[in-house]
Amino acid sequence: MTGWRTIGVIGGMGPAATADFVQRIAVAAGAARDSDHPRVLVDSNPHVPDRNAARAGNGPSPGPVLAEMARGLTGLGAQILAMPCNAAHGWAGDIVAASGATFVDMIDAAVTEAVATGARTIGIIAIGATLDANLYQHRLDAAGMQVIASDRGIVQPLVTAIKAGDTSSAIRTGMAAEASRLVSAGAGAIIAACTEVPLVLSQADVAVPLVDATSALVRAVMQAAAL
Amino acid sequence: MTGWRTIGVIGGMGPAATADFVQRIAVAAGAARDSDHPRVLVDSNPHVPDRNAARAGNGPSPGPVLAEMARGLTGLGAQILAMPCNAAHGWAGDIVAASGATFVDMIDAAVTEAVATGARTIGIIAIGATLDANLYQHRLDAAGMQVIASDRGIVQPLVTAIKAGDTSSAIRTGMAAEASRLVSAGAGAIIAACTEVPLVLSQADVAVPLVDATSALVRAVMQAAAL
Repeated sequence: MTGWRTIGVIGGMGPAATADFVQRIAVAAGAARDSDHPRVLVDSNPHVPDRNAARAGNGPSPGPVLAEMARGLTGLGAQILAMPCNAAHGWAGDIVAASGATFVDMIDAAVTEAVATGARTIGIIAIGATLDANLYQHRLDAAGMQVIASDRGIVQPLVTAIKAGDTSSAIRTGMAAEASRLVSAGAGAIIAACTEVPLVLSQADVAVPLVDATSALVRAVMQAAAL
Repeated sequence: MTGWRTIGVIGGMGPAATADFVQRIAVAAGAARDSDHPRVLVDSNPHVPDRNAARAGNGPSPGPVLAEMARGLTGLGAQILAMPCNAAHGWAGDIVAASGATFVDMIDAAVTEAVATGARTIGIIAIGATLDANLYQHRLDAAGMQVIASDRGIVQPLVTAIKAGDTSSAIRTGMAAEASRLVSAGAGAIIAACTEVPLVLSQADVAVPLVDATSALVRAVMQAAAL
């Protein structure tokens, strides 16, 4: 490897999850000094229209704002684009259409790692906008996997609390309980399919393989960015 | 408060310190939901010319690259600029000259907090490029404070290790020992004047008030960005 392409991050959904993603890229670079890292351009824009509302038909599409962010990052030099928000991938087509940069798809990255676990039934911890768009369902169906979805009435309040900065043990326990419920229901692996989830849930909390979509995206991005 | 101006971050010096800064901005926003956060644009550029080499006359000035980064961030909409790297503030003038955005100076922010501790003698933990440019010395002199500088032969290897991802107990102990030495030499407060330092040193490690320049910059930026 001789260096890195410039990485653009379409972020802010939410800001803490984006900061977590950027921090993980810095670790994943495995660099001994500043100049061995990739250049990373980030647009942490918390004003992207709400994904749940848009999916439910109660608000504007995030697509045009995401496309504008992609154009801005590409204009500054981004060659590889990534978006650390699962639900927003329902509008990934707008990003791909708007920018000539390579878009590394988080759902594809996580599904690839879920298939590699060898499990046949996958539990998905996600918010409504991700589930309603069938982002994971369609790709896991195509791979011949069974899907068990999390309960949005349980997961949404937890994600809302994490977005408000609450990563207390009560929130951690609640998220771990939902993962356990999916395992009891037959899941042989779990996908943390919302970027707020790994802020409170780790492999130690789950009895089966935990595929962290954020980590999967970091790995896929570093592979795509390596020269 | 009705909202936030857009914050631009001139970063990558180093990437982990920039990720730390972005994470702290997300926490400092104290937001209950995504849309209550400021928009943050980040250029984490690890290819800014080496500050130590430039200060020693052994390499190109970082000024033109920093100015170009400032122009790029402002062009994307940044209204408040901040740079989480103390040493690079030796070229802050290039940034101010290049961009119409408000530049929030990290050295000023940290000196203000150091003065507020009431200490008359301030220990500075910094790398050579920061010390040689007298970034803190001149401003603390002007405030009538005494300065005791860290030993660059001790601090530089610790910072180099942190930049390589090493935040082990050996590095933490070494940094705490250098802080203790400054306290023994008469420092009534310590400034962590390199953004890698707070990645391993916290108030619990130091017997006198610790002014974390990164935290001081976060506070000053949030104040400047608030509408």
